[in-house]
Amino acid sequence: MKTRQWLLADHPRGRPLREEDFRLVEAEISDDPGPGRMLLQTLWLGFDPAQKGWAENVADYVAPMRIGDVMRGSGIARVVRSRHPRFAEGELLVGLTGWTEWLVSDGIGFERVHPGLPPLAMLSVLGTTGLTAWCGLFKLGEPRPGDTVVISGAAGATGSTAGQLAKVAGCRVIGIAGGPEKCAWLVDEAGFDAAIDYKNEEVRPRLKELAPRGIDVVFDNVGGQILDDMLAEIATGARVVICGGISRYETGVLPAGPQNYFNLVFRRGTMRGFIVLDWASEFPAIRQRLADLVNAGRLRWRVDEQQGFENAPRTLMRLFRGENRGKQVLKVAD
Amino acid sequence: MKTRQWLLADHPRGRPLREEDFRLVEAEISDDPGPGRMLLQTLWLGFDPAQKGWAENVADYVAPMRIGDVMRGSGIARVVRSRHPRFAEGELLVGLTGWTEWLVSDGIGFERVHPGLPPLAMLSVLGTTGLTAWCGLFKLGEPRPGDTVVISGAAGATGSTAGQLAKVAGCRVIGIAGGPEKCAWLVDEAGFDAAIDYKNEEVRPRLKELAPRGIDVVFDNVGGQILDDMLAEIATGARVVICGGISRYETGVLPAGPQNYFNLVFRRGTMRGFIVLDWASEFPAIRQRLADLVNAGRLRWRVDEQQGFENAPRTLMRLFRGENRGKQVLKVAD
Repeated sequence: MKTRQWLLADHPRGRPLREEDFRLVEAEISDDPGPGRMLLQTLWLGFDPAQKGWAENVADYVAPMRIGDVMRGSGIARVVRSRHPRFAEGELLVGLTGWTEWLVSDGIGFERVHPGLPPLAMLSVLGTTGLTAWCGLFKLGEPRPGDTVVISGAAGATGSTAGQLAKVAGCRVIGIAGGPEKCAWLVDEAGFDAAIDYKNEEVRPRLKELAPRGIDVVFDNVGGQILDDMLAEIATGARVVICGGISRYETGVLPAGPQNYFNLVFRRGTMRGFIVLDWASEFPAIRQRLADLVNAGRLRWRVDEQQGFENAPRTLMRLFRGENRGKQVLKVAD
Repeated sequence: MKTRQWLLADHPRGRPLREEDFRLVEAEISDDPGPGRMLLQTLWLGFDPAQKGWAENVADYVAPMRIGDVMRGSGIARVVRSRHPRFAEGELLVGLTGWTEWLVSDGIGFERVHPGLPPLAMLSVLGTTGLTAWCGLFKLGEPRPGDTVVISGAAGATGSTAGQLAKVAGCRVIGIAGGPEKCAWLVDEAGFDAAIDYKNEEVRPRLKELAPRGIDVVFDNVGGQILDDMLAEIATGARVVICGGISRYETGVLPAGPQNYFNLVFRRGTMRGFIVLDWASEFPAIRQRLADLVNAGRLRWRVDEQQGFENAPRTLMRLFRGENRGKQVLKVAD
C-alpha cells in the first residue's frame, strides 16, 4: 500500500525554517505488518519547537536526523492491523509516528492514550508539553507558596501549563507573551495574576512594577532579550529554569547570551537546563496528577488544530511566528 | 594625630579603573581611641577584583560606597593602643581596615590572624580568597574523584587555590591563564594536570583535546568568551560555578553574555553564583582545613607584595591587567 511522507530535505541550520526544508513523497509500505508488528494510521501530528533542533541535527540528546529521513515527530495513531502481542486493532496509541500517514511499527516507544481525557491531551497537557512543564517547574524551579514566578512564552502550550501549575502551588504568576489577545487569555482564562505584552510594553520596567521583591522562579521558553530582562530582576536565591529558547529558532542564529548572567552571583541564583526524558520513569504518575488537575477544572489546555497532511511543514512554522494558540496539532485523518 | 587615606573620588562605572578615581588626603584622628575602642595601624592591604564593583556601587550585597568615603578594602593591622575588651596591644588583626594608614575601630568585623600560618595568609589562602575557592568548589561545584575540573583565571589567588583543592579531591584539573609563565607555574608548582594559555592558544579546541569526555565542573573567574568556550564543552550533569567575571572589569563594560548557555539544556547542566559571606558561620572550620592542607604541603599560595601606601590605586589596577602573580597585597608599614 501507499503512504505519503514528509522527508527532511535540508538541515535548517543558522537560518529560519523554510517549507523547502521538507519534501513530500509517496512511499510503499506492506499492509501486512509481519509478526510482532502492527500497521498504524496517523490521526494527528503534534508540533514542538524542539523539532527544528532535530532537523538542524544539533540536538545531540536524540539520534541525528539525516537528509531523506522521514521527519521526526509525535503523533496519535490508530492500530489498523495488529500482530503485536500487546496492542489490539482499534486502539489509539501515542508515540513518535514521524510525518507519515501510515507506518508499520514494532510498538517500541508507543503507548496507549490516557483513558481519562480526550486523545489529543496526549499530545498536549499529558504529553511532552505537560510533562516538561511539570518537571521543569517542580524539579528545577522548586516553587514555594508566595513565590513570584515569571514565565516567558507563557501563552504557549508548555508555558501556560507551567503557569497554571505554579498557581496550584500557591505562587503569584506573571506571564510574558506577544500581543493583547494572548495576554488577555493568560489572565482571563488561564488564571495568571498578570501578563506582560512584550510586543507593546517594556518588559523590564513592567517586571520591576509587577515583581517589586524580585522573581523567585524564572521559567524561560524564549532566551535572548527576554531572558536577560528576567535575569535582571531575580530575587535572592532565584531558580532560573531554561526550558526552551524559541528566540534562537525564530532568527535562525544564536541570540546574544544573557549579559545579566552575573546577577546569579549577586543574587545567589541557580540556572539549570533539563531534558524531560531523564524522568521518564515518573511519567505515568505525573500524567495522573495532570489529568486529575484537568478534571478538577484547575488546569486548562487548548489545541490549535490545523487540517491536512500536506500542511505539516507550514504547521510547524506557525510555532516560530507565534501564530499558534495553544498546542499546535494537525489533523491528518478521521 | 594624622593619617593618610585614599578616598573614592569617582564611581568607575562602564569604564576601566583610573588612578584619578581615588584621592589621597591627610585626615586627623584621635590617638586616644576611647572606651571599648582601639587604635590600629595598617601593615598590609589586600586587593580583590570585587573592589571595583564596590567602587562602582553596583554590588548590592555590600553597603553602597559614596564619593568621599575611605576606599573599602581588607587589611592586616596591629593594635597599637587598646581600650577594647577582647583585643590587646600588639595583636595582629584582619578585617576591613579600608585604605588608611591608621584607624580607630570598635573591633566589629576584625579577628585575630590564624596562629598556624604567617599573617599574610589571612589576606590570601585563609582569607576571602581561600574561603571563596573552598565554598565555590565544594558547595556549588560538588567535585567527585575522576571529574574533569576547568578553572579560568587559574593563576589568580582564588583560581589557583580552587584548582589545588580539586586535585586534593581526586579530580583532573585544567587551568586557563594568560601567558606561558603563569601556565608553567600552574603545572610545575601548583600541580595542575594541564594549562591552556588563552593569549597564545585557541581555548575551545584545546579544551576538546584535554577534556574529551567533557567538563564536569567549570569554575569561572573571567566571564566573556572564555566562559562561553567552557560552556561549549560541558559534560552531562555539569556544574558551572560563577565565581568572578574579571573580563567585565577589564573593559569596563559588560562583555557579551554566554551564547552557549543553552548547552545547560542539552547537558542538563547547572550554573550558579554565590556570595561567600553567606557561609560565614563555617569560616573557622574551613580555615582550619585550609591551614592543615598548607602545612601538609598540599596547598601552595603566593603573594605579590608591592610597597608603599601611596601606591594603593596602582596596586589595585594590577589585577585588571593580569600583572599580579598570586594574591596582590601592598605593604604599608613594618
